[in-house]
Amino acid sequence: MRKHTAIVLLVTAFSITGFGQRKIVNLPDLPGYVTLKCDFHLHTVFSDGNIWPVARVGEAYRDGLDAIAITDHLEYTPKKDYVPVNHNAAWEIAQSTARDYNIILVHGTEITRDMPPGHMNALFIQDASLLAVDSVMDVYEAAIKQKAFIQWNHPGWKSQEPDGIPKLYDVHKKLIARGWLHGIEFFNDSEYYPLVMTFCKQYNLAVMSNSDNHWVISEDYKEPEYTNRPMTLVFAKERTHDALREAMFAGRTLAYFRDVIAGREEYAKPFFYQCISVGKPFSGNERNAYLEVTNRSDVPFYLINGVPEAPPAINLPANSITRVAISRKVTSPLTYDVKNIITGENEVLKVELK
Amino acid sequence: MRKHTAIVLLVTAFSITGFGQRKIVNLPDLPGYVTLKCDFHLHTVFSDGNIWPVARVGEAYRDGLDAIAITDHLEYTPKKDYVPVNHNAAWEIAQSTARDYNIILVHGTEITRDMPPGHMNALFIQDASLLAVDSVMDVYEAAIKQKAFIQWNHPGWKSQEPDGIPKLYDVHKKLIARGWLHGIEFFNDSEYYPLVMTFCKQYNLAVMSNSDNHWVISEDYKEPEYTNRPMTLVFAKERTHDALREAMFAGRTLAYFRDVIAGREEYAKPFFYQCISVGKPFSGNERNAYLEVTNRSDVPFYLINGVPEAPPAINLPANSITRVAISRKVTSPLTYDVKNIITGENEVLKVELK
Amino acid sequence: MRKHTAIVLLVTAFSITGFGQRKIVNLPDLPGYVTLKCDFHLHTVFSDGNIWPVARVGEAYRDGLDAIAITDHLEYTPKKDYVPVNHNAAWEIAQSTARDYNIILVHGTEITRDMPPGHMNALFIQDASLLAVDSVMDVYEAAIKQKAFIQWNHPGWKSQEPDGIPKLYDVHKKLIARGWLHGIEFFNDSEYYPLVMTFCKQYNLAVMSNSDNHWVISEDYKEPEYTNRPMTLVFAKERTHDALREAMFAGRTLAYFRDVIAGREEYAKPFFYQCISVGKPFSGNERNAYLEVTNRSDVPFYLINGVPEAPPAINLPANSITRVAISRKVTSPLTYDVKNIITGENEVLKVELK
Amino acid sequence: MRKHTAIVLLVTAFSITGFGQRKIVNLPDLPGYVTLKCDFHLHTVFSDGNIWPVARVGEAYRDGLDAIAITDHLEYTPKKDYVPVNHNAAWEIAQSTARDYNIILVHGTEITRDMPPGHMNALFIQDASLLAVDSVMDVYEAAIKQKAFIQWNHPGWKSQEPDGIPKLYDVHKKLIARGWLHGIEFFNDSEYYPLVMTFCKQYNLAVMSNSDNHWVISEDYKEPEYTNRPMTLVFAKERTHDALREAMFAGRTLAYFRDVIAGREEYAKPFFYQCISVGKPFSGNERNAYLEVTNRSDVPFYLINGVPEAPPAINLPANSITRVAISRKVTSPLTYDVKNIITGENEVLKVELK
Repeated sequence: MRKHTAIVLLVTAFSITGFGQRKIVNLPDLPGYVTLKCDFHLHTVFSDGNIWPVARVGEAYRDGLDAIAITDHLEYTPKKDYVPVNHNAAWEIAQSTARDYNIILVHGTEITRDMPPGHMNALFIQDASLLAVDSVMDVYEAAIKQKAFIQWNHPGWKSQEPDGIPKLYDVHKKLIARGWLHGIEFFNDSEYYPLVMTFCKQYNLAVMSNSDNHWVISEDYKEPEYTNRPMTLVFAKERTHDALREAMFAGRTLAYFRDVIAGREEYAKPFFYQCISVGKPFSGNERNAYLEVTNRSDVPFYLINGVPEAPPAINLPANSITRVAISRKVTSPLTYDVKNIITGENEVLKVELK
Repeated sequence: MRKHTAIVLLVTAFSITGFGQRKIVNLPDLPGYVTLKCDFHLHTVFSDGNIWPVARVGEAYRDGLDAIAITDHLEYTPKKDYVPVNHNAAWEIAQSTARDYNIILVHGTEITRDMPPGHMNALFIQDASLLAVDSVMDVYEAAIKQKAFIQWNHPGWKSQEPDGIPKLYDVHKKLIARGWLHGIEFFNDSEYYPLVMTFCKQYNLAVMSNSDNHWVISEDYKEPEYTNRPMTLVFAKERTHDALREAMFAGRTLAYFRDVIAGREEYAKPFFYQCISVGKPFSGNERNAYLEVTNRSDVPFYLINGVPEAPPAINLPANSITRVAISRKVTSPLTYDVKNIITGENEVLKVELK
Repeated sequence: MRKHTAIVLLVTAFSITGFGQRKIVNLPDLPGYVTLKCDFHLHTVFSDGNIWPVARVGEAYRDGLDAIAITDHLEYTPKKDYVPVNHNAAWEIAQSTARDYNIILVHGTEITRDMPPGHMNALFIQDASLLAVDSVMDVYEAAIKQKAFIQWNHPGWKSQEPDGIPKLYDVHKKLIARGWLHGIEFFNDSEYYPLVMTFCKQYNLAVMSNSDNHWVISEDYKEPEYTNRPMTLVFAKERTHDALREAMFAGRTLAYFRDVIAGREEYAKPFFYQCISVGKPFSGNERNAYLEVTNRSDVPFYLINGVPEAPPAINLPANSITRVAISRKVTSPLTYDVKNIITGENEVLKVELK
Repeated sequence: MRKHTAIVLLVTAFSITGFGQRKIVNLPDLPGYVTLKCDFHLHTVFSDGNIWPVARVGEAYRDGLDAIAITDHLEYTPKKDYVPVNHNAAWEIAQSTARDYNIILVHGTEITRDMPPGHMNALFIQDASLLAVDSVMDVYEAAIKQKAFIQWNHPGWKSQEPDGIPKLYDVHKKLIARGWLHGIEFFNDSEYYPLVMTFCKQYNLAVMSNSDNHWVISEDYKEPEYTNRPMTLVFAKERTHDALREAMFAGRTLAYFRDVIAGREEYAKPFFYQCISVGKPFSGNERNAYLEVTNRSDVPFYLINGVPEAPPAINLPANSITRVAISRKVTSPLTYDVKNIITGENEVLKVELK
């Protein structure tokens, strides 16, 4: 067993030539669209993150994501005594790895101002250094010149909004009026802001969900407590950088984190129906018939408010099959509210099991 | 459930004010000594690592370590276009966090040369920049002037020793003769070198075990496959920087990784007996008596070569109790070889269950 | 790799000669007493359980228990068309296995009547068949003749008490008056009854916690959601059948399930202090000192209601070390309420970190 | 928090009205056939098992199986002092539960004789008691009268074949000649017998894989070490009792356990190609192109013996995506041997990645 030579104890899961295995994320495509799993808010050592840009691509690959943006702060660079300020560095460094791992790398930066207007990400830019100007409206103008998608980050963050309630200030209304605001974070890390649903529906903005990670994804979203980081699901015509961009400006997104989906009903409804399938009733007795509901997605669904005589609530755990007993007395369609699919500030998705 | 305000979904395991929980590592103290769990070989963005120095302290805290050294390469700084060369930077940056988390931070650097002599860590230094000189013997001299502990890293690394066999070249013999070499890595990440046991015993050097991590500890040593990173166990008079230093120069160490312990019999033997306790025989029948062996450590032990009529092999899994049937015919003491406690190149520890 | 012969793929965890490994349950002894981990309420195929009696001993061994009672229903034997009624069968069958695995097997049965008085276990009996008589008071008398410990099971079970509130009926008061009732279940499977604390304190009865398992322990209490079944902790003078009996009649118990401990303050308080140790303050700055609190038990503790300027709440997860920042302004003792140690119907344990 | 009433601590995973969630087993259908997951060898308290028949259905439901047979020993009933001999009892008891959980329950029994002929299961019978006759050939005749499928169990079991090598004795040849033998176990619990492939191919018998479980499936095949029990995959025209029977007599099976598939190439090859999909090459550089191989099944595949310049070996872990670098120098088709798909005693499946 023991010899004079070096002995590799066991194959390591993380091979020396790459980032290891890529996870299959079970989130279905919508008819006509491919579902891209994205995180548009990430930091590195080039602002206040603790990790090198290449690692962000490795994490995205392993997590089964399709696209990420590294969005270091323009105005906050606390490591500058050791790491000189360079707003395009993370993008330059991560690019070739993204290409080799088939990750769509969106060039981005975080415009980091007091509230209002708060923090905003400029995505799909070409040169972040051109945004390093004083006046906040000049920054946006520089971003828009680069055809940026502007995303308002964590609008109810308590460090900037002590009551936790997102507010549309004049500057936000001005941005919206000019077409300079395109999406708002509903989820940012473990926070979410129900009012964002109202803003997005009223002004036709994309509902976003991102990790805003400063550390290491696998430590901050650790299994078994966490099975996924916050993701924006984008429904694109194909899996390319430009199709992703088109879909985001068109607002075809859902926000996803843990066991919650949030977004417009027009995307949430087909998403739900693509996730589940209802089997034919079998066996049963005088009182009940039985049927199996298969949920092939990573999202559990909690159905509540069943019609009279039907089960008042049904849980459909992720990636499993649930057997439901249906009383022979039920005559109306099996409608339910899906407690964890949020389609409005005070509204959840209504579905029917057929 | 949904309100206008920001909602924190759940308490995150990793609180914003700290590094979360500290693991209890079950490795016993030896009579007269406290067992310090240490990793003396770690990289950051200041050489070819992917992580910020403060994160190394956070990892050590969570893993239940007592001491670490960050040992960025002196001569290999591939990120220098973005992160200017600064040999003391990691030490400067990590220091205050180490103090607040009660981690002993050993100042170190990796002298990175072709074989011979290969890579060596200088530990317990004061200023790494003084070691950035050309001639390799000058580097050692500069280190020794700072009273450094010199550790030979991965002596059988195939990139430097294609046959994987560590060799004592003239330069190593010269260093040993001058008292300029104090320890050798038996474990480096997933490699181990049995011949190191021979060198260490012959020249009275400390047997070392380190991760040499460039990435993220929790990803490279992922549960359940891995329960621990490679550690050097140091038997110190107390838990202080100076007592640690004294113990290492005195060679009071064991190397530990996965389920293997390696080192001198004088430390390995009491270590084993501190880990286990043997209960009183109970019940039984005409043929057998039963007894329970409790292993309160994180190290499983594999006992082989039992005496006639005794169980030929006994596994004592970590942190559990094993019931052993002992034939009434056994008359000699219950001696065993512990297959996974290596005390020499071709030698394992012999123990007795009493 | 493939040969003509049978090939055992891998060592199976569950060896053919035994029940595998025994878990170490980290629950400390009290000064002067050994802490016995017990489950006094279990069913088998001899009433309405689904498992053979020997399996109950195997489960207890693996779970690290010290004692169990198999308590099949006297009056409810739904499998009798296939398994003839035999009230002592489970006891007879399990006995020799219990002896060989060093498990204290308490002879018991469940007296299964409508409420009042509901279900009661007779423990420490010699012959269950003598209890198969009609009148309920005759059953108790027969049990008491055998010096039984009588335990009232799930007193607030909704099938018998639709409002879920346990009530002391005349028959209970009569039993108490005669000294024929000795303990009440606070925990029964996943239910608990706060009012039981009041009854037990008023009439000096033992607080009990049992699984009442009908199926398979490892499936009904599955990791990681569950780390333990409900257990009664009994503080006995030694680990013997008779010492266990003495301790139970003396009421020296705590009820334990998941992360909750319930029982008298005189046992709960020393139990808490045996679980934790507080380290010396270290480092710190002008504002704070730091100290580490080590919890070596399997029970997490949730400390709330801290004194002014101290952390208002501290979580001490099981088997880990928690670092606490203490403001230099704190002058009073660090007192807390332990939210998950219940010492009365509306009362939790008060402790001090010193 | 604490009230007078009973409090259910948390929703239990195992609801009181059923067997909880049903697992999705990711094993694809073959073109024209549905893949039924089956275990045709299980014991209960009616022979030497430790569990009640209903529990076998519950286990099958949770494990995502389609069909099981309970096959208690005809001639070995060690619990008969407590559980009277009744060869049809398990079948009678389990039937209604099987119907309500949509599990196909195959009526069976184990004919338990010395070698030769050893143990055989008679499956798809109507009345096991008619098989309780003395002469072994009379037993088979009685089974065949009931149109039984006869399966030879664990033919190389060391208790009956000390050298572990299965042998075709005269009695086996006689059975085969009469058409009275229809399948042989390749896997039985953790044992497998390579020579069974030769017998099955020569005499056109079905390759079988079963657990032969006597205890509890979830304890004997515990995650994470085990992700599945041994199963026979049957390729049936539809998911019915009769279609299952037809497929088995036609020999359309594969044996499956842990990470090994065994059976005829005509089923193994389309099974492999249904499991994986190969993506379009992307990115790459002058030296390599990259492509992703998606394995949507629960079976990992280990590809070895790659053509020159291609990767010599590729691991395709279960339910994940593997990125492969293909040198631009490769011109021949990407053929591999699949090390863990056994198609003959000394033969594995050859495949091509296209």
